[in-house]
Amino acid sequence: MIKAAVLGATGYAGIELVRILSNHPEVSIEFLGSQSFDGKKISEVYKNFEHVLDVNCSELNLDEVQKCDVAFTALPHGASKTVIPELINRGIKVIDLSGDFRYDDVKVYEEWYGEEHSSPELLKESVYGLCELHRDEVKDARLIGNPGCYTTCSILGAAPLLASGLAETKNIIVDAKSGVTGAGRGLGLAYHFCECTENSKAYKIATHRHTSEIEQELSKLAGEEIMISFTPHLIPQKRGILSTIYINLKEKHTTEEIVRLYKDYFKDEFFVRVKDMGELPETKHVAGSNFVDIGVVVDERLQRAVVVSTLDNIVKGAAGQAVQNMNLMFGLDEKTGLANAGFYL
Amino acid sequence: MIKAAVLGATGYAGIELVRILSNHPEVSIEFLGSQSFDGKKISEVYKNFEHVLDVNCSELNLDEVQKCDVAFTALPHGASKTVIPELINRGIKVIDLSGDFRYDDVKVYEEWYGEEHSSPELLKESVYGLCELHRDEVKDARLIGNPGCYTTCSILGAAPLLASGLAETKNIIVDAKSGVTGAGRGLGLAYHFCECTENSKAYKIATHRHTSEIEQELSKLAGEEIMISFTPHLIPQKRGILSTIYINLKEKHTTEEIVRLYKDYFKDEFFVRVKDMGELPETKHVAGSNFVDIGVVVDERLQRAVVVSTLDNIVKGAAGQAVQNMNLMFGLDEKTGLANAGFYL
Amino acid sequence: MIKAAVLGATGYAGIELVRILSNHPEVSIEFLGSQSFDGKKISEVYKNFEHVLDVNCSELNLDEVQKCDVAFTALPHGASKTVIPELINRGIKVIDLSGDFRYDDVKVYEEWYGEEHSSPELLKESVYGLCELHRDEVKDARLIGNPGCYTTCSILGAAPLLASGLAETKNIIVDAKSGVTGAGRGLGLAYHFCECTENSKAYKIATHRHTSEIEQELSKLAGEEIMISFTPHLIPQKRGILSTIYINLKEKHTTEEIVRLYKDYFKDEFFVRVKDMGELPETKHVAGSNFVDIGVVVDERLQRAVVVSTLDNIVKGAAGQAVQNMNLMFGLDEKTGLANAGFYL
Amino acid sequence: MIKAAVLGATGYAGIELVRILSNHPEVSIEFLGSQSFDGKKISEVYKNFEHVLDVNCSELNLDEVQKCDVAFTALPHGASKTVIPELINRGIKVIDLSGDFRYDDVKVYEEWYGEEHSSPELLKESVYGLCELHRDEVKDARLIGNPGCYTTCSILGAAPLLASGLAETKNIIVDAKSGVTGAGRGLGLAYHFCECTENSKAYKIATHRHTSEIEQELSKLAGEEIMISFTPHLIPQKRGILSTIYINLKEKHTTEEIVRLYKDYFKDEFFVRVKDMGELPETKHVAGSNFVDIGVVVDERLQRAVVVSTLDNIVKGAAGQAVQNMNLMFGLDEKTGLANAGFYL
Repeated sequence: MIKAAVLGATGYAGIELVRILSNHPEVSIEFLGSQSFDGKKISEVYKNFEHVLDVNCSELNLDEVQKCDVAFTALPHGASKTVIPELINRGIKVIDLSGDFRYDDVKVYEEWYGEEHSSPELLKESVYGLCELHRDEVKDARLIGNPGCYTTCSILGAAPLLASGLAETKNIIVDAKSGVTGAGRGLGLAYHFCECTENSKAYKIATHRHTSEIEQELSKLAGEEIMISFTPHLIPQKRGILSTIYINLKEKHTTEEIVRLYKDYFKDEFFVRVKDMGELPETKHVAGSNFVDIGVVVDERLQRAVVVSTLDNIVKGAAGQAVQNMNLMFGLDEKTGLANAGFYL
Repeated sequence: MIKAAVLGATGYAGIELVRILSNHPEVSIEFLGSQSFDGKKISEVYKNFEHVLDVNCSELNLDEVQKCDVAFTALPHGASKTVIPELINRGIKVIDLSGDFRYDDVKVYEEWYGEEHSSPELLKESVYGLCELHRDEVKDARLIGNPGCYTTCSILGAAPLLASGLAETKNIIVDAKSGVTGAGRGLGLAYHFCECTENSKAYKIATHRHTSEIEQELSKLAGEEIMISFTPHLIPQKRGILSTIYINLKEKHTTEEIVRLYKDYFKDEFFVRVKDMGELPETKHVAGSNFVDIGVVVDERLQRAVVVSTLDNIVKGAAGQAVQNMNLMFGLDEKTGLANAGFYL
Repeated sequence: MIKAAVLGATGYAGIELVRILSNHPEVSIEFLGSQSFDGKKISEVYKNFEHVLDVNCSELNLDEVQKCDVAFTALPHGASKTVIPELINRGIKVIDLSGDFRYDDVKVYEEWYGEEHSSPELLKESVYGLCELHRDEVKDARLIGNPGCYTTCSILGAAPLLASGLAETKNIIVDAKSGVTGAGRGLGLAYHFCECTENSKAYKIATHRHTSEIEQELSKLAGEEIMISFTPHLIPQKRGILSTIYINLKEKHTTEEIVRLYKDYFKDEFFVRVKDMGELPETKHVAGSNFVDIGVVVDERLQRAVVVSTLDNIVKGAAGQAVQNMNLMFGLDEKTGLANAGFYL
Repeated sequence: MIKAAVLGATGYAGIELVRILSNHPEVSIEFLGSQSFDGKKISEVYKNFEHVLDVNCSELNLDEVQKCDVAFTALPHGASKTVIPELINRGIKVIDLSGDFRYDDVKVYEEWYGEEHSSPELLKESVYGLCELHRDEVKDARLIGNPGCYTTCSILGAAPLLASGLAETKNIIVDAKSGVTGAGRGLGLAYHFCECTENSKAYKIATHRHTSEIEQELSKLAGEEIMISFTPHLIPQKRGILSTIYINLKEKHTTEEIVRLYKDYFKDEFFVRVKDMGELPETKHVAGSNFVDIGVVVDERLQRAVVVSTLDNIVKGAAGQAVQNMNLMFGLDEKTGLANAGFYL
C-alpha cells in the first residue's frame, strides 16, 4: 500500500483527492493536513465521509508526513513555499496542485505570478504532470507540478493539431467555461448561490495565469513560440470545464481528416475520448471521472478547426490527474482507482 | 462472479444500477435490456461509459437472461407483468424495482394501484427488500420487491419511534421533498429545465402510492394499523429525498433521549447514519452514496418528534438498495461495491 | 408623489424594494441608506439599475430621511433600535422589515428573540402589516411591522380554516421550504453556490422565530391559543416559499367544500389566488409578483386538510407587502405598482 | 391605445411578449393566438397571469386579428408563411420573430435555411429590426424581421469596432453561451432538467443559422464581406446570452481607447450600456430587462480586442426588442414599457 498524505485536505481539490484515494485499492490515507479544521475528523468537515473515513485533520506535522510515501499538496500559496522543499529533502515524493512547479522557465513564472520564485532549483527538477504528454518523465519524478484545470483541458484539446504541423500558430483562441468548484471553497460574494445561479460572466480576460501554462506546452508541441487568447468564464454549475478552441489550418482539411488525426494521436490514451465525427462532448459526460472528451469540427468556409474539449475540473483538472501521476510514479497501472464512468446524473 | 442482467437499463434507475454494478468487484454485467436502444452500446446512450463499459443493449431475450444469476427489473408496468414470473420459472433471482412485489396484502396493492395483481402467488412469496428491516428474509429470497425511494427514506426515519412504542400512532405526517431524477427520464413539460429550475411544488397529495407502502411497514413495526399523511414535493435538484416526519410522543421526552433511541436502533447498520444531537442531515451528504442520514429534534412544547431523513433517491432509494439486496442474496458482505462516500460536490 | 427612503437598500429585501419602487408610478426614491456602500450609486452596487436609477447610497442621515414621507427600514437588528423611534418622532411613517414590531405581546417577542424590547411603547402602537388581515389598522398606522416571509405564506394558508371554526387547533403542522434569497446577502459557507446547489435541508426545527408570529396570528383568528410545529427548509432556488400545512378537521368535509371556503374567504383579495379543486400552486407561478397562491386537498381518510401556500419571499414575503402597506397608508389603490404577473421564466 | 395581437402566444417568446405588453401603458392585448391551447385563458396556461390577464387563446382568426394595429408573430415556420402576407395585405403591421424576414438577400436566406423563400417580395420590403442600427427604417416599416437572440447580442458587441475601420475583418470569432429558454418550450431530452442542469455543451458548430444574420450586419457595418466563426453553447440557466467576441486590431490600441470608442458609438442608446474599463458584464445584470451590456478588453500582447456582450435572450433577444420596434413604428418613445431594471435576483 502506498501511504499518502493530503495537505490542504479540506479545500475542494483536497477533498476530491480524499474521495478518490478513499476508493483507491493501493493507497492508505495516513495524514490529512488542514489548518482550519485541526483536530476534527474529516467526516465532521465533509459529512459524506461518515462511516467511510474517520482520519483526523491535523496542522502540518512534517514528522508525521515523513512516514508517507507521497504527499499531495493543495496548500495556500504562502504555505507551500517552505513545505515542499522540506518534504523533498525528507525523501517524500510530492505532487503539488499549485501553480508553483509547472514551469520550464522561471522567468515565465515570475512574469505571470508577479513575484520571485522561491525554489528555482526545485522548479528545474520538477516535472509538469500532464500525464498524456509527459508520462515518461513523470515516472521518475520526485516533484510533480500538477497542471491546472483550464490548462489540461485546453492543452489536450489543441495538442494533436499543433503537434501535427497542420495548424497556423497565430490566431489561436481558447474560450473556456468553468463550473464554480474551480473557484474553491473560500467565501466571496460572486460565489454566493443567489449571485451565481442564473448567471454567467467572463473574467481575467488576457491576464489569467493559465494562459502562460497553455502557451508553454503548446509551444513545445509546435516547436515554436505560441501566444494565445485565453478567456475564462464562470457558468452556473459545480463541476466541468468546456474549452472551445479555434485554430486556423494552413491548408484545407475536412472534419473527417482532423477527427482521424485526433483519434490517431490519442489512440493509446485511456483517459482521452475523441468523439466520432458529428458528435460533441458535454460536461455531463465527464463529471466525476478522469476522462477528457474532445470533439472536432472543421469550418471549411474559414479553413478553421473548432475543437471542443471537456473535463471535470476537480478530477482530471486537479485531483484525478494527481492520482494518475501518483500511479505512474509508483509503477501502478495508470488507471488504478480512476477507471470509473463518472456520475452523469 | 455474479452474472447480472439489468432489464430497463437506460432509464435513470437502470443506468444507476449499471454505474454501481460496473464498480462492483463481484459482478459481471452480462445483459442490458432496453427496448428503445436495442442494438446500441450502453456507452452510446450514456456517453460517460465510453472506455468503461461497452455492453450492447438488446431487446428482452429470455434465453440470454437465463445465463445470468440475477436480473434487476426496472421495466415499464406492462412489461414486468409477464417477464418476472418467467424469469423466476427459469430459476433466475429477480430484484424488481417496480411497485408490484412490495405488498404483503394483495388487496392493498389493488386498492392503490387500481388494478388486479397479475401474479398474486408470486407476490406472496416475494420479500420486501428494505434490507435494514428484512435482512434475513432477503437472504433466502428468489424475488425481491425493491422498495420505493420515498418509502425507504420515510420508513427508516420513523422506524425507531414506532418500534419503540413511544410514538402516538395518530397524526403522523410525512412531508417529503424529492429531486427530479425521481420522475425518470420520460419527457414531460413539468420536467423541462425551464419549468423545473427555480420551481417547487407538491403533487399527488393524499393519493401517492408510496403512502400505502409506508403504512404497511410502519404498521408492522408498531403492531397496529397506521395511516399517515404523505405529501411528495418536487424540488429543483437532480438527486436526493428529504423526508420531514412529525410524530407525537405518548409522553415527554428530550431530544437527547430520542437521539439515543435512534442511535441504538441503528447501531449495527452501516448504511444508516444517525446524526448527533444538534445536527441535521442534508441531501448533499448522501448524494451518490447508499447512506440514509437521519436527524431528530423533539419539540418539547408540543411533545412531538420531528425527524429528518435523507437519502439519494436513485441509490439507497433504488439502484443501491437493489445491489445491497443482491449482496445479501448471494452471501456477500452487504457493503460490497457500495461503501463509497458519495460525491458531496 | 410619495417621497420614499429605503434604509438598508443594498441587502436583498432592500434592493427588491428599490426595484419595486422604481416601477411605482406614485413614488420617488429620495434616499437610499447603506452603511457598506456609502457614496456609491445604487447602480454601481446592483448593475441592473444602470440607466434606470442613479441615486447615491449614503450612510444614515436623519435630516435627509426626514424630507421623506415614508421610510422602509431593512436594517441590521442593532441599528434599527435607535433609528425607528427617531424617525417616528420626526413624523415619518415607517415600514419596518425586521421582526421588532410584529408582536402584540412584548413577552412573546422577548421570549423568542431572547432580549428585552427596546421600544415597548412603539411596539404597542405598531400595526402588524399583513394587509389581508389588518387592512383597516394599516391605513391609519404610523409604524408597520412588516410580516416575515414564512409567516405571510403560512398564516394566509391557514387563515380560512382557523377563522371558520372547522379546524382542530391541535396538531397543526407547517412544513415550509424557502429559496436562498431568504437568507440574505451575507456570506456564509452554507450559501456558497457549490454547497447550496443540489442540496436541501431543514434548519432551526422547533426554534425558528417565525413560529411565534404564525402562532400569534392564528390564535387571533381561531379565538384561542394555538401552538404549531413550524419547520423551515432551505432548497436550491433563489426565490419562493412553499408552505405545506396540515390541519385536522373537526368533522368530515370534502375537498370541494374546503376549496369553496377558501375561495369565499379570499373573494375580495386581489393578491390571493385560491386554486380550483384539483390544482396546486407552484413557486414559479408567484415568482417576481406580490401574489399568494393557495391550493387545498382534504385527505378524507384522515379527516385532514392539506393546504399548500406559496409566495415570493422577497416580494409578498418582504418588499412587495411593504409597498402594499405603503399604498394603504397613503390612500392609494393597494395594487398600485404591484399588479404585475411575475416572471414565470 | 395600440391594439395588439400575439400569434404563438404560449411559446416562451410569445409569453414574454404577453408579459411585457401586459405592463405596457399604451397597449391593449386584443388577440392571443395559440393552436395548442385554443379556448383556454392565457392564465390557465401560464398561471402567473391569473388576476392579471384573462384573455382567451384562440386558433388563428384573421378577421379578429384584423381589428388590431399590430401583430407579433412567433409562429412555427410553416404557419407563418401564409399568415404574414395575409396580415400585411389586410393592413396590419407585423413584427415577425422568426428568421424569415431578416435578410437583405434572398439567396443568403435560401442557403442557410435550405429552402426557397415563400415571399421574396415581402422580404425585400421588410426591415431588419435591430433598432440601434436601423431605427429610421423601422419607424416607417410595415413588416419587421425581428432579429435573433444570438445575433442582437453579437452584432451590437462587434458593431463599434467594425464601423470604425479599426478592426481586421478576418479571424473574427463569436463564442456565444445561451440559457435554455432559447430552445423554446418544445420537449426534448436535451432540455429535460436532469440532462440539462450541471451540463454545458457546444452545438451546431459552423452551421447555426444566426451566423448568416451576424455576417450580413457586420458586413454592412464594415463595408466589406465578413465571414465569422460562430459557436453557440447551451449552459444551465434559463435566461441570458453572453457572447465573447475576438477581433484583431489593425494597429495597436489600448483598452482605454477602445472602451472610449464603444462609449462614444452608443452614447445616445438607452438600451446599450458600455461598461467602464476594468468592468465586465454578467447575464444577471440584464436578466428580465431590455438592456445589452458590453465590456471590452484589449489584449495588447496580441493586438486583439476581446468584447463581451450580454442580453436577456427572450427580452432584448426577442420579445423586448419586438416591443421596442413597435414603439418606434407607432411613434412612441422607444423606452415605453421597457425601461425597467431587470430582476437581478
